[in-house]
Amino acid sequence: MRIALGQFNAVVGDLSGNAEKMRSMYAEALRSNVDLLIFPELAVCGYPPEDLLHKKHFLQHNLFTVKKLAADCPKGTIIAGFADSYENDCYNSAAILQNGAISKIYRKVLLPNYGVFDERRYFQAGTEPLVIGIAGLSVAVTICADVWDIDWLADFLKDAGRIQMVLNISASPFYMGKTKQRQAILSRCAKEFNCAVSYCNLVGGQDEIVFDGRSMFADSSGKIVACAKAFDEDLLIADVTATDKGVRVEPATAQAPQPSDLIDEVYQGLVLGTRDYVRKNGFTKVLLGLSGGVDSSVTAAIAVAALGAENVVGITMPSEFNSPETIADAKKVARNLGIEFLNIPIGPTLAQFDEALKAAPGWGSKGVAYENLQARIRGSILMSLSNSIGSLVLTSGNKSETAVGYATLYGDTAGGFAVIKDVPKTFVYKLAKHINKIAGRQIIPASVITRVPSAELRPGQKDSDTLPEYDLLDKILKGYVEEDKSAQQLIESGLPQDVVHKVIRMVDRNEYKRRQSPPGVKITPKAFGKDRRLPITNRYSSCEDAS
Amino acid sequence: MRIALGQFNAVVGDLSGNAEKMRSMYAEALRSNVDLLIFPELAVCGYPPEDLLHKKHFLQHNLFTVKKLAADCPKGTIIAGFADSYENDCYNSAAILQNGAISKIYRKVLLPNYGVFDERRYFQAGTEPLVIGIAGLSVAVTICADVWDIDWLADFLKDAGRIQMVLNISASPFYMGKTKQRQAILSRCAKEFNCAVSYCNLVGGQDEIVFDGRSMFADSSGKIVACAKAFDEDLLIADVTATDKGVRVEPATAQAPQPSDLIDEVYQGLVLGTRDYVRKNGFTKVLLGLSGGVDSSVTAAIAVAALGAENVVGITMPSEFNSPETIADAKKVARNLGIEFLNIPIGPTLAQFDEALKAAPGWGSKGVAYENLQARIRGSILMSLSNSIGSLVLTSGNKSETAVGYATLYGDTAGGFAVIKDVPKTFVYKLAKHINKIAGRQIIPASVITRVPSAELRPGQKDSDTLPEYDLLDKILKGYVEEDKSAQQLIESGLPQDVVHKVIRMVDRNEYKRRQSPPGVKITPKAFGKDRRLPITNRYSSCEDAS
Repeated sequence: MRIALGQFNAVVGDLSGNAEKMRSMYAEALRSNVDLLIFPELAVCGYPPEDLLHKKHFLQHNLFTVKKLAADCPKGTIIAGFADSYENDCYNSAAILQNGAISKIYRKVLLPNYGVFDERRYFQAGTEPLVIGIAGLSVAVTICADVWDIDWLADFLKDAGRIQMVLNISASPFYMGKTKQRQAILSRCAKEFNCAVSYCNLVGGQDEIVFDGRSMFADSSGKIVACAKAFDEDLLIADVTATDKGVRVEPATAQAPQPSDLIDEVYQGLVLGTRDYVRKNGFTKVLLGLSGGVDSSVTAAIAVAALGAENVVGITMPSEFNSPETIADAKKVARNLGIEFLNIPIGPTLAQFDEALKAAPGWGSKGVAYENLQARIRGSILMSLSNSIGSLVLTSGNKSETAVGYATLYGDTAGGFAVIKDVPKTFVYKLAKHINKIAGRQIIPASVITRVPSAELRPGQKDSDTLPEYDLLDKILKGYVEEDKSAQQLIESGLPQDVVHKVIRMVDRNEYKRRQSPPGVKITPKAFGKDRRLPITNRYSSCEDAS
Repeated sequence: MRIALGQFNAVVGDLSGNAEKMRSMYAEALRSNVDLLIFPELAVCGYPPEDLLHKKHFLQHNLFTVKKLAADCPKGTIIAGFADSYENDCYNSAAILQNGAISKIYRKVLLPNYGVFDERRYFQAGTEPLVIGIAGLSVAVTICADVWDIDWLADFLKDAGRIQMVLNISASPFYMGKTKQRQAILSRCAKEFNCAVSYCNLVGGQDEIVFDGRSMFADSSGKIVACAKAFDEDLLIADVTATDKGVRVEPATAQAPQPSDLIDEVYQGLVLGTRDYVRKNGFTKVLLGLSGGVDSSVTAAIAVAALGAENVVGITMPSEFNSPETIADAKKVARNLGIEFLNIPIGPTLAQFDEALKAAPGWGSKGVAYENLQARIRGSILMSLSNSIGSLVLTSGNKSETAVGYATLYGDTAGGFAVIKDVPKTFVYKLAKHINKIAGRQIIPASVITRVPSAELRPGQKDSDTLPEYDLLDKILKGYVEEDKSAQQLIESGLPQDVVHKVIRMVDRNEYKRRQSPPGVKITPKAFGKDRRLPITNRYSSCEDAS
């Protein structure tokens, strides 16, 4: 049997557009004599459709789209994910399309409701396995999390007879290193059932998550024999043959190049996440502040890779506190990237604002309020340009500063998309070097990478006046934010108590800022946003002992 | 048996503070010879603790707090909600405290995972009923949603023998008119089991929800015989006696006054929601822009009721587009409320900003960008004062404009708490009249209530240049936002097609603005925020036919 994995970039809610992409892959698959064409989880409506699933007309539209797809694609077998409603319940389902109609439906059983997932908000769990014969092979249909608990799956399928292939349609969000976990689980699945595994994953950015594709085939020995492109659409084809001993899988398409390492995959994820957020929301151009620092330089480089240099505008907005060196570096980055560059000094506006604020008792031209005002003037300039030329503003806050609230609300957090929001500062430097490496030249000047970080909001300011050194900060944040460790656990692992307590308090206190921040691409196991839902009003302190 | 419902205002995460409140109510209950003292769902940690529940040390701390509470309160029986962990699972539980220790634990079975609720993200469902004998009465313990499906409950308790009282601990968020639903369900429960019902609900504001209390007792005829205060702490006591025919309940405390109507309950909910957000987040004072319009006037009046006039500062920030009448009205509102009033004109800052922006190609001193800039200057002024004097900024956008995005991001949406975010514009007028009525004088001048609404960002501007009349707009929004109806359904109900389509498109297009808006008090069945989770990136149109 010849199988194709139709790894395509679905847009949430774009039922007809998604169906059109599937029809076009179907035509391509037909030309390659494919028997079975597999599309990702919820391919018809995109993932996650969230509360669109509460609209009855949306569910009707979903079913209508699947039926039309079936009618338009009558040859062979197609399997595609869709939101299936029955009476007042909704299921995360796979439709089996044969002979111009829906021949069968499988309903996902294991519904993830953790991290970024809210499936039990929307879906009832299925209860029945579906094993079908396709081109002489016995195929078990599963959806995403259904294969992540192999013991459960073995039990679920125990009365299904000999299974020659487990087919899994997924919408599995990317984070650093996740593909290894997927390979391990698919390999285990293949060995458990002594069968082939066909795994079709979604690709594309959707708000704060990005799907990395990398659909795969495994043979019954557990070997991953073919892997589709990362962060791009692909039609991966293989021939699957049952033998006496097991099931053979032979790739029929060339091996796709894969990211060279974790840094490269994060870079590619950020590029696709940014491109899709901008384009799927109807924008062509973006603009961003260029400070001459590493965060905005990396963000600009990612934007250029995502959208083309002609669609990115960099703006420097210097005050008296910006050094000639950083201003020159901002200009260099823009020149190296070949993007338009504007210089809008904020000094006179800051002076006028300051004058107006003297009407308020207690106002003074220094301190945090005065520093934040500078950031807010910059935010207002960027948003004014965004409104006047129709460009989306990118922000360039990293995960470390987002965590501790080292940012001005409505200032440097003002914008539509926060490209490196989930990238720790220490990793931003790795991206900067990677960007230079793949360009084969210095896009981001060495001085940007080596300079001591500063917000440049007062004379001689350094980030380390307020924050611990980033190496230490990022270690604490990984433990506290990503791993939910207590202060005590972090201290016991050798981190200094005073810094641990200080950082935890900063993280807790700044939930309100994060709640009003733009979305950005998740690249770690736990990102801020849907992945980590803490109350703003919260008196619990992880610094206290539970005894 | 004498029972007390300990309706108290828990703070999320404040384990020791919540326990202290419970200890103090225990002391009061002892003085009244109470046999059984009941506290709300998750009373120990507050509701909803969200991802705090993913911290193992938080769960340990929870258990430790309950054990200490038990030891401190050894007399009679106490029932209190807490987050109970067992191995790697977590349960939404009720602890039965007797003789200084936890004697039994009931685990909630029906876990709501819709609207603002995410309980299946955190909790496993319990499987066992708990019926205990207390002071000679047979009492079934239930938690919140467990009683909302009476048929299920009857089945669940079918082998439990005669039940003389169903006890329910709740954290049931307020929305307009909800108390009637609760009364109906408790009454049905009483009749179903021919038993008394003791219902203890939480009170207090927590981010975007407010709990209204109104704990109740029903007798076995289904009659609600006593109801605790709305939006305030209360210890409601009654004597429950089993007779041959049923169960009698006699109140032992005076009947608490209840809100006079739906407008009054919304008003009280907004006052408590605002007070608790401000105070529980460590603020004493608030400031807000006063435009002389009805939204900011109502917001200011609520802030004064919540925090006292001495803790509210109103700021007018006029430009050349503000009429003398609205500026005078802003001043009048401040005077009527007795709050501090500042005047910080934005003209010179706007001119200087405009001058700076001329460096950008395409910038012009008119259009939406120029209008938004005015709002952003005002937002920056408020935030600067917030930063310099440590006050929280209240925003005053209503639900109608929040829905259609008739607001400037980082401008009038800039602030910590959006008091009337869930109040439709037509309801804001009702609140304005109510505020004058309960004050017995004109707090909000008649001119503010009768004037044609305008954002005053360009000469002669009226809201109706951009939006439909609010009566019509609010009807469409109720159908589309709160009831998830399609354009077709709304049109079939008699609403004009062109306006329906325009409004739906505006709502859909402005999800990104809402995502970055501050939280506000939920007062309708479906509020923006956790209650309604739509993707930003979304190409689905509810204006299209599903055929």
